Amino acid sequence: MYFLTYLYKGQENYGILNKEKDRVIPLGGIFKGKTLNDFICTFNDSMLENIHGLMKSSNLNSIPLTEVKLLAPIPYPKRSLFCLGKNYLDHAKEVVGLPGADDNIPKFPIYFSKIGNPAIGHLDMIKNHREITEMIDYEVELAVILGKDGINIREEDAEEYIFGYTIVNDISARNLQRKHNQWFKGKSLETFCPMGPYIVHKSQIPFPVELNIKCSVNGEIRQDSNTKNMIFNIPHIISDLSKGMELKAGDIIITGTPSGVGLGFSPFKFLNSKDKVECHIEKIGTLTNFIE
Amino acid sequence: MYFLTYLYKGQENYGILNKEKDRVIPLGGIFKGKTLNDFICTFNDSMLENIHGLMKSSNLNSIPLTEVKLLAPIPYPKRSLFCLGKNYLDHAKEVVGLPGADDNIPKFPIYFSKIGNPAIGHLDMIKNHREITEMIDYEVELAVILGKDGINIREEDAEEYIFGYTIVNDISARNLQRKHNQWFKGKSLETFCPMGPYIVHKSQIPFPVELNIKCSVNGEIRQDSNTKNMIFNIPHIISDLSKGMELKAGDIIITGTPSGVGLGFSPFKFLNSKDKVECHIEKIGTLTNFIE
Repeated sequence: MYFLTYLYKGQENYGILNKEKDRVIPLGGIFKGKTLNDFICTFNDSMLENIHGLMKSSNLNSIPLTEVKLLAPIPYPKRSLFCLGKNYLDHAKEVVGLPGADDNIPKFPIYFSKIGNPAIGHLDMIKNHREITEMIDYEVELAVILGKDGINIREEDAEEYIFGYTIVNDISARNLQRKHNQWFKGKSLETFCPMGPYIVHKSQIPFPVELNIKCSVNGEIRQDSNTKNMIFNIPHIISDLSKGMELKAGDIIITGTPSGVGLGFSPFKFLNSKDKVECHIEKIGTLTNFIE
Repeated sequence: MYFLTYLYKGQENYGILNKEKDRVIPLGGIFKGKTLNDFICTFNDSMLENIHGLMKSSNLNSIPLTEVKLLAPIPYPKRSLFCLGKNYLDHAKEVVGLPGADDNIPKFPIYFSKIGNPAIGHLDMIKNHREITEMIDYEVELAVILGKDGINIREEDAEEYIFGYTIVNDISARNLQRKHNQWFKGKSLETFCPMGPYIVHKSQIPFPVELNIKCSVNGEIRQDSNTKNMIFNIPHIISDLSKGMELKAGDIIITGTPSGVGLGFSPFKFLNSKDKVECHIEKIGTLTNFIE
């Protein structure tokens, strides 16, 4: 079940993808909520049946996928993204030189925040910000979309707080991460949050989540791992992050990136103008973006 | 000109304080916008005259200050707070031991993010979160409230992007700042963002901003400095932070804290149950809170 946000004839709407027919079934108007974010906040499992029904019926309103412009599934997150640093062992080892990245293996999760509003979508352009950085880096990450508010969530209850999953490319200006000591600013420049192409409902993804995750630049595979290699797994992250701090439906947690980022190579392999970056996660899809 | 948000007879509203008479003049309904945040986003200088007029007239709807419950002036900030770390020299020297706090004097501003939604108000209680911390610390800070959107703002234009000023006590769980390496989580627990009591319009505060700033715990003065002692001043912060990243009306930038935090003493002087913390900034007022 692939949820998406799109532009069609100049109008923004959200819908569900009929993969077999490559058609989009609009959901705005059928369900409460003007946006996919609203829909997620009011979602309950009894709506799954309705959606299955809509997908089976010969939906007269459906639109060929080729005729829509995909946006980020949540283009305007209500809160900044909750991010994990150094959550794959091989990546933790490659990023020496970043402040806070000196110990090889984190003993506890490293949390930071990233402005993702607006998030950009599949095929959108990442600005190069050449006046302030020449060290733009890619980081493919599994993004967990929460479907329910909660504080002090137990690990064994974590899955019920999840709505689904998507891909975020956690674009980072490495010089600014270093310059400003804390990572927030170097992660939060305009267009630094490509997201998509779809949110896949959790019912499609077995738990624990073990998905191949890859990133390539101009066709050259740079990152290639599996989400089972996270140091802190999804139930632990949701439980630990929610201690003393409420998580909310629509919140987006990005769970860290495996090795192979540009900073990890010698010499560095940062992104250049016109580069094509493809982030792929099994069962979710491929998020492609271009550098200005 | 003191703007405030308050509860009166169970209803939330915003207004302006007539200091001479200690009465609150409600503004909701007179101006566009349901909240002070909305009001700030639509504010322009021509409205100042109207407000002066309202204050001079014998306003029949005004309410004695003693009859309202003050809330944070912006109880629900649309975005997380933009925060400065180690922005007073004497404080930078006292906080060795925090990750990212090893160099004595920052060469560039240290930016991080703090969840301040909901923010708590004057006289509200700060939760002690005893299950996860016994190292709760205070940090009095001058908060700059922006009144206008902008990106790549020049230092010489910075003042025109400001709406006014308030006080934020940047409550911090020191053990969590250290445990999670980046500072975000240790700064973002529930009730960790006391704000207020008022937003003072910039027309009342000469620029550059040179205000005495103090914090006391149970009457003992712990922090005592002046905002002119910031390492990076307000025009520099607004200009530098807005490089490649849009700042928005209603955004709140907290500008760092002077020396005298609990972490700076040997032995430490963290906050205990029932402690009374008073944050005072000249021309703004005193923000008082209690520990659970």
